Amino acid sequence: MPERLYLEDLHVGQSWVSEPHAIDAAQIKAFAADYDPQPFHLDEEVAEKSLFKGLAASGWHTAAVTMKLLVGSDFKPAAGIIGVGFDELRWPKPVRPGDELHVEGEILETRASRSNPRQGLIKVKTSTINQHGEAVQISVGNLVVPRRQT
Amino acid sequence: MPERLYLEDLHVGQSWVSEPHAIDAAQIKAFAADYDPQPFHLDEEVAEKSLFKGLAASGWHTAAVTMKLLVGSDFKPAAGIIGVGFDELRWPKPVRPGDELHVEGEILETRASRSNPRQGLIKVKTSTINQHGEAVQISVGNLVVPRRQT
Repeated sequence: MPERLYLEDLHVGQSWVSEPHAIDAAQIKAFAADYDPQPFHLDEEVAEKSLFKGLAASGWHTAAVTMKLLVGSDFKPAAGIIGVGFDELRWPKPVRPGDELHVEGEILETRASRSNPRQGLIKVKTSTINQHGEAVQISVGNLVVPRRQT
Repeated sequence: MPERLYLEDLHVGQSWVSEPHAIDAAQIKAFAADYDPQPFHLDEEVAEKSLFKGLAASGWHTAAVTMKLLVGSDFKPAAGIIGVGFDELRWPKPVRPGDELHVEGEILETRASRSNPRQGLIKVKTSTINQHGEAVQISVGNLVVPRRQT
């Protein structure tokens, strides 16, 4: 894909794959301590007895790592990756220490903005996948992208 | 609300308000450096020229702070706050350095799980509100809660 993407460069079905990111227990606990300090994200023994049956990352940690991988990927809208909201966000499987995650992105829709002639809106599906090929996060988000000025 | 909430303790319309959390530029840049390293979340000068017209927090930072406030609030499901996904997640306004955020939660639906007699599912709306009374994040999420065992 080009280095700086405008609405005119984007089309339905365009897809990309990020680099991988390895998750460990220290990362899971550090994120949880700051943003989701529930015992099953902080302590292996408590986690064993929880619904997760073992230490698991906060879903918001998975979402944050997904964003990091997306920002580092070949998907480079000219004004940055700017989301206005999501049609879907779910965590079908927990993220565990030792998991290696990557993100697969795909454009589902593109259209010009009705209110701003300089902007477009695109709908992007991102799947965050672990080393077993299982999706740990699925999202469908709406992003603002600039239009090429003529 | 009681200290450990089961499905039987929860009802549509139940609501709660979290403590406040003050956001500053250092927090915005630290989160962004780790998880959303785009220039408009890291550098005031670049941010002025961006779509945000000034330094703004990553939406994922707002989501993470929202979770922290929710975990610290009076909303205490007996097995923890465990989300399986969202019907809605959006960021209607940017979060700026100096903002003071709090979260308002409300239960929209409660029901028994069809597949697991020990579990219930609830739908919760959370609104993250700044010091001007403006919503910076709205979410509608689906949580798993335990049923009281008889």
